[in-house]
Amino acid sequence: MKLSARNQIKGKVKQLSHGPVSTEVIIELAPGIEITSIITTASAREMAITQGQEAYAIIKASHVMLGVRE
Amino acid sequence: MKLSARNQIKGKVKQLSHGPVSTEVIIELAPGIEITSIITTASAREMAITQGQEAYAIIKASHVMLGVRE
Amino acid sequence: MKLSARNQIKGKVKQLSHGPVSTEVIIELAPGIEITSIITTASAREMAITQGQEAYAIIKASHVMLGVRE
Amino acid sequence: MKLSARNQIKGKVKQLSHGPVSTEVIIELAPGIEITSIITTASAREMAITQGQEAYAIIKASHVMLGVRE
Amino acid sequence: MKLSARNQIKGKVKQLSHGPVSTEVIIELAPGIEITSIITTASAREMAITQGQEAYAIIKASHVMLGVRE
Amino acid sequence: MKLSARNQIKGKVKQLSHGPVSTEVIIELAPGIEITSIITTASAREMAITQGQEAYAIIKASHVMLGVRE
Repeated sequence: MKLSARNQIKGKVKQLSHGPVSTEVIIELAPGIEITSIITTASAREMAITQGQEAYAIIKASHVMLGVRE
Repeated sequence: MKLSARNQIKGKVKQLSHGPVSTEVIIELAPGIEITSIITTASAREMAITQGQEAYAIIKASHVMLGVRE
Repeated sequence: MKLSARNQIKGKVKQLSHGPVSTEVIIELAPGIEITSIITTASAREMAITQGQEAYAIIKASHVMLGVRE
Repeated sequence: MKLSARNQIKGKVKQLSHGPVSTEVIIELAPGIEITSIITTASAREMAITQGQEAYAIIKASHVMLGVRE
Repeated sequence: MKLSARNQIKGKVKQLSHGPVSTEVIIELAPGIEITSIITTASAREMAITQGQEAYAIIKASHVMLGVRE
Repeated sequence: MKLSARNQIKGKVKQLSHGPVSTEVIIELAPGIEITSIITTASAREMAITQGQEAYAIIKASHVMLGVRE
């Protein structure tokens, strides 16, 4: 599947924390650069996500805010 | 300001494209790792964002989807 | 790519309206059921989306609101 | 209430899964076409959503990603 | 329509800026408290939004980030 | 940090409800005007958010929907 999302960044699953409805997944993009994702626990189970696995962080450009140090 | 967003990733503004209402900003997080952000042109002007500037990509964890190669 | 998004709904591209930064795409899921998507014009160009083409509307469950008639 | 959301799609509540903070609701738009929504459990309780009930899936166009089979 | 969104805040349309695809709308919730919304220009036209009109800012709780001064 | 978010609205933390993964925070912007936010419980703990504390509700303009009474 080719996606419209501007951001499809490859990394590795570093950590998983399951709740009853939501699951937190930390993806390491490069040493010291991580992205945290919250997905449904149902999705995490279906995708059988495991630590160490290659995964993509997919983010619509309109969901990325910018910050600048003052 | 300390933010609740799990993702506050430092990078450099690589490219800017202004539209009348929306502006696309590409931030380089590390060599070969980029994030694209769409913000309002009003914000881009107020923040006086310029190419080469240090900037943070700020993303709520609930806005990050996961993808896995089949 | 296998995605965490709960919603990956197949349809056909019915209409495209390009702006300088954003593009509006209408996808027909079934006769009389449509979903409208706003993506970056850069993505629309790269994906070479054309009218009549098969396409998927991909939506995180946390971005779907519920409404009930009173 | 008239809403700005491009997507206000009528369906029927097919399934509900309550967590302590979040609730997953599956809406059937047409036979074989479903949308999953995550709302707060507080909202689900206040709206008294029940299985079989008519409900609308409401989605901002900027939250809909596009995918195309390669 | 009764909505699942935790946030449905009444205000007045203070300003409108139309682009070809997106429109920026500023809603005044109370003196000195404003919310800016980006909707599709198609929606703004269909809703015939005008300055001074009563309007609601509708926001899913999962789209609200928290900030605290350091 | 200066943010691109059009909406950075000051208020006071009125109520907190912790789940295992998600936490609901109600911020009072002015008497009778509240915004509810869902953040990760990890963030709520790290920020040490407490009732009565000053806090900002930060919302991207593209995440604000408009509603008008019919």
